[in-house]
Amino acid sequence: MFHPILNQAHAWVERVLRPGDLAVDATLGNGRDAAILAERVGPLGLVIGFDLQQEALDSARARLTSPGTADRVILVKTGHEGMAAVLARKAPGRRPRAVMFNLGYLPGGDRAFATKPDTTLAALASALDLLSPGGIITVVCYPGHVGGQDEQDAVLAWARSIPPPRATVVLYQFLNAHKAPCLLAITPK
Amino acid sequence: MFHPILNQAHAWVERVLRPGDLAVDATLGNGRDAAILAERVGPLGLVIGFDLQQEALDSARARLTSPGTADRVILVKTGHEGMAAVLARKAPGRRPRAVMFNLGYLPGGDRAFATKPDTTLAALASALDLLSPGGIITVVCYPGHVGGQDEQDAVLAWARSIPPPRATVVLYQFLNAHKAPCLLAITPK
Repeated sequence: MFHPILNQAHAWVERVLRPGDLAVDATLGNGRDAAILAERVGPLGLVIGFDLQQEALDSARARLTSPGTADRVILVKTGHEGMAAVLARKAPGRRPRAVMFNLGYLPGGDRAFATKPDTTLAALASALDLLSPGGIITVVCYPGHVGGQDEQDAVLAWARSIPPPRATVVLYQFLNAHKAPCLLAITPK
Repeated sequence: MFHPILNQAHAWVERVLRPGDLAVDATLGNGRDAAILAERVGPLGLVIGFDLQQEALDSARARLTSPGTADRVILVKTGHEGMAAVLARKAPGRRPRAVMFNLGYLPGGDRAFATKPDTTLAALASALDLLSPGGIITVVCYPGHVGGQDEQDAVLAWARSIPPPRATVVLYQFLNAHKAPCLLAITPK
């Protein structure tokens, strides 16, 4: 009946993303978001994906099996807080229409590489500055692992503090599930 | 881009409500929900609407202008906490597939008639007991008026306490808007 969190994130992104767009997967993980973004932006589009772990870059690369998608995805082994500099270099003069964050750690990977509040907040602020008009940021937070609740609290506090004239922020959350993830979506005005 | 709160409530209700169903508008107010429910359940369906204020019943009645809708809506000048008894009398043996709550006070009306936590929680518990399998409860909370924040807090606490095997609860909220309403949707498992 209700879209699961990740499907809802994709549904919102797909409402705004158009062929030829620049899109960012800020947390490659297993590359699911990057693959979907690459399909959506089409042959003239570009996706830039970030992760600190080589394992994540390899997983993401392996997932780009649809014809042509691998050619339009740039994988960068850098923290997402470096997004502005990377985009300036790899896609000069272009603004992303979608930036997707799927926080936490790579499933099955080293939890020491889990995203952290400081760098996550820096990356979110950067994404909001970079975003194209009509674009969207989605953020999925996971409160279940060590540090996850603190990161979610920090992200929610940041989102609540965005002045309403600057952006609309929507929260979508399964409320009575223990340690369930939550989804934020942010669209600039 | 994002559905406004009330539209999202209607979108969810419309996903489950079918011709011939019983539906409940637990807070008639100006009758907007009742009118939409009456359209949706069709000629074989039934809508029962609750409000304490005659003014609300009159507004709701005046809004039932689509052909045939007035004949399938029963308006009851009773608090929604009496829902079970009213349904047993007016629709014996039938379970509602949708129960909509739009809390607070009648716009332009007497705020002394605003919904209150105790009776709201009693009505919600009753609605969850009565609901048909595959049905839905929607609740829009308004934190902006006197007592509204307390009522929202009480509703959210109640919703969080619903055991996951019993129902799924989703929260949809504009996060950075001052005193913005929030929407809960509850579907039994």
